[in-house]
Amino acid sequence: MGQASPGSAEAATLCKGCWSQMRVPIPIRGIWAIPFKLAGVQISRMNPNLCNLCETKFTSVKKSSQVTVAATILFADIRGYTSLTEASESERMTSLLGDFYEHCSFAIWERDGIVNKLIGDAVFAIFNFPIRRPDHVEQAVLGALDLQRRCQSLKATLSGGAEQAISVGVGIHTGDVAIGEIGQRLKDFTAIGDVVNLAARLQGAAQPGDVLVTESVYAAVRRTFPSAERDTYALKGINQPVAAYRLRA
Amino acid sequence: MGQASPGSAEAATLCKGCWSQMRVPIPIRGIWAIPFKLAGVQISRMNPNLCNLCETKFTSVKKSSQVTVAATILFADIRGYTSLTEASESERMTSLLGDFYEHCSFAIWERDGIVNKLIGDAVFAIFNFPIRRPDHVEQAVLGALDLQRRCQSLKATLSGGAEQAISVGVGIHTGDVAIGEIGQRLKDFTAIGDVVNLAARLQGAAQPGDVLVTESVYAAVRRTFPSAERDTYALKGINQPVAAYRLRA
Repeated sequence: MGQASPGSAEAATLCKGCWSQMRVPIPIRGIWAIPFKLAGVQISRMNPNLCNLCETKFTSVKKSSQVTVAATILFADIRGYTSLTEASESERMTSLLGDFYEHCSFAIWERDGIVNKLIGDAVFAIFNFPIRRPDHVEQAVLGALDLQRRCQSLKATLSGGAEQAISVGVGIHTGDVAIGEIGQRLKDFTAIGDVVNLAARLQGAAQPGDVLVTESVYAAVRRTFPSAERDTYALKGINQPVAAYRLRA
Repeated sequence: MGQASPGSAEAATLCKGCWSQMRVPIPIRGIWAIPFKLAGVQISRMNPNLCNLCETKFTSVKKSSQVTVAATILFADIRGYTSLTEASESERMTSLLGDFYEHCSFAIWERDGIVNKLIGDAVFAIFNFPIRRPDHVEQAVLGALDLQRRCQSLKATLSGGAEQAISVGVGIHTGDVAIGEIGQRLKDFTAIGDVVNLAARLQGAAQPGDVLVTESVYAAVRRTFPSAERDTYALKGINQPVAAYRLRA
């Protein structure tokens, strides 16, 4: 939405994605943005420091419908969401989800990630595309811990009026992902591949309040979290048991 | 995308959603659509017979951020997607997903449903909003069976070059859902509630090739499928066991 303001204190006047990917300055705020707005350029819903060209014109901009890039993938979701929905009124759940999206997007945007998808109680974020950051792995981990801290205040109001604390699980993995537009008539901008699937499965295995990260993620943040607990997980659809580290806010 | 053409033989010249909801004629094709296009009205990605106002201006149009409506919810996903991704190259998976989205969207659009979300190997569709149809339950079921038939030809190409048949599972439930915009800064147009969650869980329980539907869905199509197999399912996060019927293409 055009109204969205970025999580970070700074609100970019140029699209950070077009600059990062192509060194092309696309004004998204201020007087220079006006002709671009008239031509249909809007602020992206995925990150308010990006323009919508980054997502809707991927194939024209990249001269390919898909690119392989190093990226860090983060999935977060609300534990016990289905049961909560059964026990709450829908207006309450809408408000809870709205607050959850707000906390997640703040933590992700602040660190130059994009919120690629909102899927009911789940958030799917990508770091290092289209805004490049050499420290994308650390940024994703810091974003996840920030997100967990912010979500500690979330409460669901049950139909009887009682309040119930909400907890969130996060999974993070990093590596090469295929990013681009999938489909011909119905085009969808997203990332796919093993790295994405493993991050999603890890999130499913995360305990309430946990940030579960793979070996390759942990390697980048080991100094900051020297004593994280390591465990191996058998994850659905993944052949080998996966080693993961548990970080806490 | 503006380029998308509808699944149905007929391509609407007026937005079917704006007409259905408000009796307001919004031209989306032909000469009368030109000034609207200049004003930023585009064809919706969720259904090519809708304009984007239906999704991005929900609160302005409906004078509320959320409405409760009778709707039918359909989830479809590719069985064994995580394992397939491990065994395939990402270009092959992109092409497979593109074909899957194509088959799903054709079957859904043909029956006036919207593709609300694409989530990797999963499709989330809504029938009866914004295009109203009194027979939305039947349309969703027919759409699901059509989708299954179309997907029978899908094949994944594994890294070694071998081909593997793909199968799809579908879950459908109907009832009152909360539809609207969730979030303040990061706004998302979607449907939430028990009906959505149960449809998603049923899809998870569906066997390859099956369309699993709840009692309330089956009540609307019993005459067409008099001998569907009934079973009860214990579904994660749902208190009571759920009776469901198995329909096959």
